[in-house]
Amino acid sequence: MKKNFLGYFLIFFSCATIAQNQAIDYVNPFIGTSNFGTTNPGPIAVRGMANVSPFNVAGSQNLPLEKDSRWFSTPYVHENKFLTGFSHVNLSGVGCPELGVILAMPTTGELETDHEKYGSTYSDEIAKVGYYSSQLDKYDIKVEATATTRTGVSKYSFPAGKANILLNLGLGLTNEQGAQVKIVSPTEIEGVRSVGSFCYYKPEEAYPVYFVAKFSEPASSFGTWKKPTTYKGVEAQWMGYNGKTRLMEGFTKTVVGDSIGAYMRYDFKIPTQVEMKIGVSYVSIENARENLEKETAGKSFDDIKAATQQEWNQYLSKIEVEGGSQDDKTIFYTGLYHTLIHPSTLNDINGEYPKMRTRETLKTDGTRYTVFSFWDTYRNLHQLMSLVYPKQQSNMVKSILQIYDESGWLPKWELNATETTTMVGDPAGIVLADTYLKGIQDFDVEKAYEAMVKSADQLENNPLRPGIKDYIEKGYLTTKTINSGSVSTTQEYNISDYAIAQLAKALGKKEDYKRFSKRSLSYRKLFDNEFNLLRPKNDDGSWLTPYNPETGANFVKNLGFIEGNAWQYTFMVSHDAKGLMKLMGGGKAYSKQLQNVFDKNQFDMANEPDIAYPYLFNYVKGEEWRTQQTVSDLLQKYFKNSSDGLPGNDDTGTMSAWAVFSMMGIYPVNPAQPIYALTRPKFEKITIHLDAEYYTNQKVVISTKLGETKAAIGNIFIDGKKHNSYFLSHQKLTNSKTVEFR
Amino acid sequence: MKKNFLGYFLIFFSCATIAQNQAIDYVNPFIGTSNFGTTNPGPIAVRGMANVSPFNVAGSQNLPLEKDSRWFSTPYVHENKFLTGFSHVNLSGVGCPELGVILAMPTTGELETDHEKYGSTYSDEIAKVGYYSSQLDKYDIKVEATATTRTGVSKYSFPAGKANILLNLGLGLTNEQGAQVKIVSPTEIEGVRSVGSFCYYKPEEAYPVYFVAKFSEPASSFGTWKKPTTYKGVEAQWMGYNGKTRLMEGFTKTVVGDSIGAYMRYDFKIPTQVEMKIGVSYVSIENARENLEKETAGKSFDDIKAATQQEWNQYLSKIEVEGGSQDDKTIFYTGLYHTLIHPSTLNDINGEYPKMRTRETLKTDGTRYTVFSFWDTYRNLHQLMSLVYPKQQSNMVKSILQIYDESGWLPKWELNATETTTMVGDPAGIVLADTYLKGIQDFDVEKAYEAMVKSADQLENNPLRPGIKDYIEKGYLTTKTINSGSVSTTQEYNISDYAIAQLAKALGKKEDYKRFSKRSLSYRKLFDNEFNLLRPKNDDGSWLTPYNPETGANFVKNLGFIEGNAWQYTFMVSHDAKGLMKLMGGGKAYSKQLQNVFDKNQFDMANEPDIAYPYLFNYVKGEEWRTQQTVSDLLQKYFKNSSDGLPGNDDTGTMSAWAVFSMMGIYPVNPAQPIYALTRPKFEKITIHLDAEYYTNQKVVISTKLGETKAAIGNIFIDGKKHNSYFLSHQKLTNSKTVEFR
Repeated sequence: MKKNFLGYFLIFFSCATIAQNQAIDYVNPFIGTSNFGTTNPGPIAVRGMANVSPFNVAGSQNLPLEKDSRWFSTPYVHENKFLTGFSHVNLSGVGCPELGVILAMPTTGELETDHEKYGSTYSDEIAKVGYYSSQLDKYDIKVEATATTRTGVSKYSFPAGKANILLNLGLGLTNEQGAQVKIVSPTEIEGVRSVGSFCYYKPEEAYPVYFVAKFSEPASSFGTWKKPTTYKGVEAQWMGYNGKTRLMEGFTKTVVGDSIGAYMRYDFKIPTQVEMKIGVSYVSIENARENLEKETAGKSFDDIKAATQQEWNQYLSKIEVEGGSQDDKTIFYTGLYHTLIHPSTLNDINGEYPKMRTRETLKTDGTRYTVFSFWDTYRNLHQLMSLVYPKQQSNMVKSILQIYDESGWLPKWELNATETTTMVGDPAGIVLADTYLKGIQDFDVEKAYEAMVKSADQLENNPLRPGIKDYIEKGYLTTKTINSGSVSTTQEYNISDYAIAQLAKALGKKEDYKRFSKRSLSYRKLFDNEFNLLRPKNDDGSWLTPYNPETGANFVKNLGFIEGNAWQYTFMVSHDAKGLMKLMGGGKAYSKQLQNVFDKNQFDMANEPDIAYPYLFNYVKGEEWRTQQTVSDLLQKYFKNSSDGLPGNDDTGTMSAWAVFSMMGIYPVNPAQPIYALTRPKFEKITIHLDAEYYTNQKVVISTKLGETKAAIGNIFIDGKKHNSYFLSHQKLTNSKTVEFR
Repeated sequence: MKKNFLGYFLIFFSCATIAQNQAIDYVNPFIGTSNFGTTNPGPIAVRGMANVSPFNVAGSQNLPLEKDSRWFSTPYVHENKFLTGFSHVNLSGVGCPELGVILAMPTTGELETDHEKYGSTYSDEIAKVGYYSSQLDKYDIKVEATATTRTGVSKYSFPAGKANILLNLGLGLTNEQGAQVKIVSPTEIEGVRSVGSFCYYKPEEAYPVYFVAKFSEPASSFGTWKKPTTYKGVEAQWMGYNGKTRLMEGFTKTVVGDSIGAYMRYDFKIPTQVEMKIGVSYVSIENARENLEKETAGKSFDDIKAATQQEWNQYLSKIEVEGGSQDDKTIFYTGLYHTLIHPSTLNDINGEYPKMRTRETLKTDGTRYTVFSFWDTYRNLHQLMSLVYPKQQSNMVKSILQIYDESGWLPKWELNATETTTMVGDPAGIVLADTYLKGIQDFDVEKAYEAMVKSADQLENNPLRPGIKDYIEKGYLTTKTINSGSVSTTQEYNISDYAIAQLAKALGKKEDYKRFSKRSLSYRKLFDNEFNLLRPKNDDGSWLTPYNPETGANFVKNLGFIEGNAWQYTFMVSHDAKGLMKLMGGGKAYSKQLQNVFDKNQFDMANEPDIAYPYLFNYVKGEEWRTQQTVSDLLQKYFKNSSDGLPGNDDTGTMSAWAVFSMMGIYPVNPAQPIYALTRPKFEKITIHLDAEYYTNQKVVISTKLGETKAAIGNIFIDGKKHNSYFLSHQKLTNSKTVEFR
C-alpha cells in the first residue's frame, strides 16, 4: 500500500506541473442532484464510508419532493430549500431510500428538537470535491463540511449568543427506525442508528451503524431527547407526557428509542467556530471511535479538507484530458468522481467489518468494499476500474470472494454486508471473468470459478438464479417460471454463462467452455421473427399472446422484461451480436432494427439494459458512424453541467461511467470480453496513466483532431499504425502509447 | 464487612442449633400477592437489585387484572394464571407500575415471540425464600429460579425436542419503552431496557437498566426479533413487513427499538436442564457482566440458592420467635422478609452507581441503597432497621446524604437515582434524626442537619416543601397554597420540624431547637372545635366551608388531605399527642374521638397516615387496653398467611414493618423520638439479637405469658423490675436483657 501511495503521489506531482487546473477543480458535485440522479453534493473521501450530505428532503416545506410522500431515494435534492441537518452516511445514485442518517444540525437560540421547526433555508451553497458550505438563513450560521474515509467533519461558524448542535437520530432517509445515544462527555457523544430494508427487502437484516461524535468546544450544557411511542393502555389518562418529546438535560446514560437525539448547548460571548467530527463504523462504537481518532487526531478542518482533496486529485488525475470545453471537462471529471464513490469502504481502519447477514466481526487485509449494485455496474463501471484503478478493482474482486466465503453465494446487490436481492440475474461472475481476462489476476480465480459455476448449476434453493430448472431444460424462463422478466432474466443468465465460458476457456476447462458457450445462446429461442424482437414464451412453448413489444417502458410491469420492454432488451446480447444479426436477417436488418429503437423513442438512457446499444452499430460494417452520432447525441442530451446533468439515477456510478468511457471514445461493449467499441472522443487528448503494478505501459494517449466538428472518424492509428477495426482489445489499448482518431 | 459477615455467620449457627425450623422456612412469599399487596413471589437476595418474578399481568387472558387495562403496579398477581415470562428487575409493594422488565421465557417447539401466543398457564407453583418453581403447562417445562444480589438465576428443565429461551425486551410492567440487545455468543446476550416515569412523573428522567444473560448450554442457533413501529408514509405500500415482527436469525450486532427481543434455540436429544443467569446494573453492560461474574462464577444453581437462603436466614434469625401459631410465625417472618427487600441495592459490586438524575457514574464505599419511599417508611421501617439491622440503616442514612450531595436536596421518593417527587412532605430528615437519636451516629450528622434545615427554610424553589412561605408565615398551608392536602402537608412539615428540633437539641443547637419546636405545633391552628378534627383553612384564615370530614377516604381527592380525610389525619401528630388532647378537651375526649375513627369505620389500615393510631391510646392513662385490643384485632383482620394477607400495597415494607413491630409488642409511635409504644406481643418469646457494632447488649428477650388469650397486659417487667409505663425508650430496650409482659 505504501509503495502504491508513493506511486500515486509521484503521478500527482507530474500531473500538477502539466495541468493548468487540477482535476478536482473540474468536479461539480451538484451534477445529478436533481432529475432523480440521487447523487448528493456533500463531501466524501475516495470510496468513503462517511459522507456529510445536506439533508433537505424532510418536512412538509419540501413537498412535493418530500421523503415520505413518494418513493424517494436521496438525502438531498437541488430543488428543495428546507434543510433539517447533515446526514453522515449516505448512498449516492441509488433508486431506493436508505441510510441518510446521523443527522447533525447547528441552531441558535432556544433548543428545538422538532425538525419541522428547527429546519432552515440556506444560501451561498458551495460544493467542491471534499468540501461543502452553506449559510443557514434562520440562524446566520455558516456550515462547512469535509470528510475522511470514515469520518464526517463539520465546521460551524456561530454568531455570538446561545447555540446548539443537535444530533437527530430519529430523522433519516431510511424507513428503518431505532437508535441509541449516550453523551460521553461535554465533547463527545456516541450512539447507534438502525438502517436497512433497502428497496423494501430483507427487513430481517436491518442493521446498525455506529458512531462517535467529537466536538472541538466543550458544551456548556448538554442532554438527550426522546419522543416516545404513544402508550395506548388505560393508564394513558395519567400520562400527560404520553407520546410527547422529552428533554433529558445533563443525562449521561444510554437512551434508546425510535425518535431520539442528543444536543450540545453553548453560549458564546463572541462569534465562535466549533468543529465536529463524526466517525462511523458498521462494527462497533469502539471502532467508530478508533476510525475517528486515527483519521483525524491532531488535524484541523483545513488539514483534513486539504488531505482529502489531494487524495481525490491523485485519483482523478489518473486520466488527464485536454481540449474540449470547460463543461465537457466538468462533466467528465464529475463522472469519474461519481465512479469513485461506490463501491465504497465497509471495513474499519483496523480491518474489521461485519460478516454477511449475521454480522459477526471479521477482519480483512485489503479494503472490503461494499455497495455492489452489480446488475448496473457489471456493464461498465468495473471495466473502468480495471483500466484506471486496477488495484481497487482487484480489491473489489476479493470483496466479492469474501462475500462468497461468508454467504455461500456471489453477491447480486450487496449493501453493507446484506444481500439486498434487488434486481435480477447473476452479475458478479461477469465482473470476475472480465477482471481476470483483463490480466488482473491476483485473486483466487479457482474459487471465483467455483462460485460462478455454483450459481449456474445449482437447481434447488438457488438465490441468484430463480427459474434455473426451466432455464437449463428449456433454455429460457417462461411466463410461468417467474411473474416478471422471463425474457430479460434469460438474457442475464446467458451473459453470465458467456462469462463462465470465457473464464473456462482461459483456465483450460474445455468442457465447461463448450457447455456454457452453448447455454449462453439460448436466448435465441425467444427470438420472434414476427416482431424481429425477443418475446416471452409460455410454459408450453407457445408465444405469449397477445403481445405488444412496447409494454414495459417506463417501469410498467411486464411479463417478459424487468424495468424495460422488448426494444430495450433484445439487443442486450452483445456477446452474440453476430447471432442476433443472423436471426434478424443480416447486418442491415440488425442495424435498421437497432436504429428503430432510437427512432421509435424506445431507447432509455436512464436504465441499464440498453446503454450499450449505441455501440452495437460498430458490429455492422459501414454503420459505425451511427455509433459515433448516437453517442455524441446522447452525451449532448443527457449529460450536462447542471444539477439535472444525469439522465436519471446514477446507479452507483454506472451512468457516470458510461459518460466517462464515451467521452474517451472507448466503451466496454461486451462484458467479460476484454474489448472496447470505439467512437469519437470528446477531447483532443486523453492521457490514461496505467498502474505499474498491473500494466507494463506507463500511459496511453488517446487523441483526435476532430475538434468540435461532428465529422465521422476517418482512420484510427495505434502507435502510428492504421487500425482496421472499430473495436480495440484491452490488451492492445493498455500496451499502446497512442490511439489516434483522425 | 468481613468481620460483620463472620458475626452473622456465628449467629446463624447458634440459631440453627436452637430453632427447630429455620427462620426462612416460615416465609411465605405469596403473602401480599393479591389484594393489591403488590409483592411478588420471585426469589431475591437480601436487598437485591435483581429479582426473578413470574410475570402474569400481560395479555387479555389475564383480564381484569391486566397491566394496561387499569392502574396496576405489580408483575405478578396470585389470581392470574397466564404467564408470559419472568421479569428480572421488579419493585415490591409499590403503588405505581414500574420496572418489571427483562422478561425471560422458556418455550418448546417452533419459535413464537408474541407473548399473547407464547404465554402459558402453570401449575405446581412453589415459592420459598430465594427460590421459586412452577411447571409451564403448555410446554411441560419446569422453571426454577433463585437470585444473588444483582443476578437472577433460572433453571429450565426442558423435555427432549426443540426448545427456545426468549428474552423479551418489549414487554414490561413499566410504561416506558425502548431497548437494545446484542447476542454476544451462543451462550451470552447483552442489552439495555428503558424504564422510568414512576407514578407517571418525570418522564425526562427515564433511565436504562443494563443486563448480561449467560446460558449454561450453547444455543444451537440464536437470533433477535423486532416489531418495528409502523411507517406511515406513502412508501408503506411497498413495505409488506411494515409494523410486523421480524426474526433476525443469527444476527450478532446491536438491535434497537421499542419492541425487540433475543432468543436462543435448542434441539435436545434427551430432557435437558439449562441454567440462565442474568446480571443487571444501572451503570453499564460491563458492570452487569462483572456483577454476574463475581456473584455467580463457578457456582451452580443449587450453590447460589443455598448461599442466598443462608444469607436470608442470617438476617431473619436476628429475631427469633417462640410460641405463637405456625401462621403467626409465617406472618411475622414474611413481614420481616418484606422489610428486607426495599430499600434495595443500587450500586454494582465494584461500588459504581449512577448519580442522581444525570446518571454520571459515581462510586460508593458502602452500599448505596435505593427505593426510598420515605413518606411510607419514615414511620416504622427505618426504626425497625435501626433496631435490628443498624449497619444497614447506617448505610441507608449515608445513601440519603449521597443523594443530598448529588442533587442538593434530601430525597422524598427516590428510585434508582431519580427523585420521583411522589407523595408529599419532607420525610427523609425524620429518618436522619430518628437514626441519630437511636445512637447510630457513624455518619456526617452536620451535613444531615444542614440538609434538613435547607428544606425547612428555603423559601424559593424548594422541591420538598411547596407552600413553605404560607407554612412559615401563617403556620399552615391554605386551600389556595396547594390544590390538595393543605392540612396533611402542614402536619407532615410539623413532623419534619419536630425531627429537626430533636436533632438540634441533641447537637446543642438551642435556638434551632426552640424555633423548630415551635414550628412543629402549628397544625394546632387548623384544629376545629366544631368537629374536634383538623380542617382546611382558606387563604384569608377562614375555614373551608362547607366541610365534610369524611370526604377523602378511599383516595377521593380532597382539598385538605392527601390520600385520606380528617379522621385519618387528625391524630397524625404523635409528637404533640398531649397538645392535641388539650385541644380536644382532655385525654378522655381524645381517646373517645380516636375510638370514633375505628367505630365510624374511618380507619384505613392500608394507608400510612393513621397506622400509628392504634398505639395512641397509650398516651391516655387507663386507655392502654384499647391499643392492645385494636392492634390485636387489626393483626387478626388484615395480616394473614394467604396471598391477600396484607391490607393493601405493602408500601416497600411499611405494612409489613407495622406487623413485625406489632407482633413483637413494640411500636415506634413517634418518629424522631426514640421510644416505643407497648402492646401485647404475639409470641411467648421474642429474642432480638443486637449488632455488636452499635449495641453493647448482645440481645434482648421480650416475653409474655399471655399465650393466646386476649387478656390485657397486667404488668411489665424490665430486667425483672416493674416498668410503670406503656412506653419504652429505645435506649432502655436495647440495654435490657428481658422485657416481660405479665
